[in-house]
Amino acid sequence: MPYVNIQITREGATPEQKAELIKGATELLVRVLNKNPATTFVIIDEVDTDNWGVAGQSVTVLRWQEQFTSGVPAGIPA
Amino acid sequence: MPYVNIQITREGATPEQKAELIKGATELLVRVLNKNPATTFVIIDEVDTDNWGVAGQSVTVLRWQEQFTSGVPAGIPA
Amino acid sequence: MPYVNIQITREGATPEQKAELIKGATELLVRVLNKNPATTFVIIDEVDTDNWGVAGQSVTVLRWQEQFTSGVPAGIPA
Amino acid sequence: MPYVNIQITREGATPEQKAELIKGATELLVRVLNKNPATTFVIIDEVDTDNWGVAGQSVTVLRWQEQFTSGVPAGIPA
Amino acid sequence: MPYVNIQITREGATPEQKAELIKGATELLVRVLNKNPATTFVIIDEVDTDNWGVAGQSVTVLRWQEQFTSGVPAGIPA
Amino acid sequence: MPYVNIQITREGATPEQKAELIKGATELLVRVLNKNPATTFVIIDEVDTDNWGVAGQSVTVLRWQEQFTSGVPAGIPA
Repeated sequence: MPYVNIQITREGATPEQKAELIKGATELLVRVLNKNPATTFVIIDEVDTDNWGVAGQSVTVLRWQEQFTSGVPAGIPA
Repeated sequence: MPYVNIQITREGATPEQKAELIKGATELLVRVLNKNPATTFVIIDEVDTDNWGVAGQSVTVLRWQEQFTSGVPAGIPA
Repeated sequence: MPYVNIQITREGATPEQKAELIKGATELLVRVLNKNPATTFVIIDEVDTDNWGVAGQSVTVLRWQEQFTSGVPAGIPA
Repeated sequence: MPYVNIQITREGATPEQKAELIKGATELLVRVLNKNPATTFVIIDEVDTDNWGVAGQSVTVLRWQEQFTSGVPAGIPA
Repeated sequence: MPYVNIQITREGATPEQKAELIKGATELLVRVLNKNPATTFVIIDEVDTDNWGVAGQSVTVLRWQEQFTSGVPAGIPA
Repeated sequence: MPYVNIQITREGATPEQKAELIKGATELLVRVLNKNPATTFVIIDEVDTDNWGVAGQSVTVLRWQEQFTSGVPAGIPA
């Protein structure tokens, strides 16, 4: 009866993509640990980019910086 | 000073029901472990049915399936 | 299919007390929101007192202070 | 590569204040544990006052009570 | 930069199995949402069976009941 | 009454360092959002390196790789 919590930034994941995450995470627990899928929970949290920080900055700011460069700034994760 | 997090699907819990959950969880910690209610936190997360998966499917899909059957599909929790 | 996470300091809760928390939290969700107990999860986290802070101090320090006073210091939760 | 989750009531924190929380939490981990800021995550959850309970009541009710008193009720945290 | 938290009962998952969970969850996020694996975190929590409840009982009790029956009790998840 | 959860790998943080994290996180919430320190909780989770994954590998493996290179492998966070 595992519980899986997936946290991502809210940047347009579709219901189909979220369904794939649910299916994939459940299958992973079944395959690796032989868990019962009927009691495997997967909860997806979509977090506003103002509320997710990395490298000391909000993702809102990081995305804005990326627009003005040719890609992800060196050393800052995408 | 306990912290209780209750995660449920967002399916119409009313403010009165949420107040009952807060009151009940607080009283539980006071009764069982003699905790101080003034510093017992209860946080309720309501999760969209697209974002909650069980048995490898989103609750959105499960609820839709239930509408076309006489009840909860065998082996799938309500 | 709710998920309840109860976080308490690790200060000697017995298996019987933890079983009461599990039973009580499950009954609360059944009573208030008519949830199915068979798919209600309750997870208890016991946290070392060095790792739990309140009022800017660890609970280890707070408990030590309490030993040298007649009770909980004013304004600091028990 | 620490992960920091800050939960607050949704009561008007501005993007600038949230950016300060992200910056401050990241710097704290760098200063105390020499963590790499590029892989320090800070996630802020803003919780509706109906969904946050303390002292057995929702913060919605507590805030309403405060309006009719000269301050925070005795023994109830702000 | 997703964060994935997998909670399972502490019942003997090996380092190899946990490595598979980490690899599989990371690949899932890369495949479905094109996330950067270098900044995908996977945290596994192993929870004592006394501290995990389902159907109002601890998993410790459920496992003990299973030993005396031919399988999982009807309606109680494995 | 904020709640802060700090998750780090279990790699020898001392009680003094954890006390600094508690103090610093509490002060941050007081300074930025004028929160009441008496009801600010900080919970630190120390996670075994087998149970923390990044870049699809456990930190146990990453640390072992670092021992055989002059530093952090390119593109993998420290």
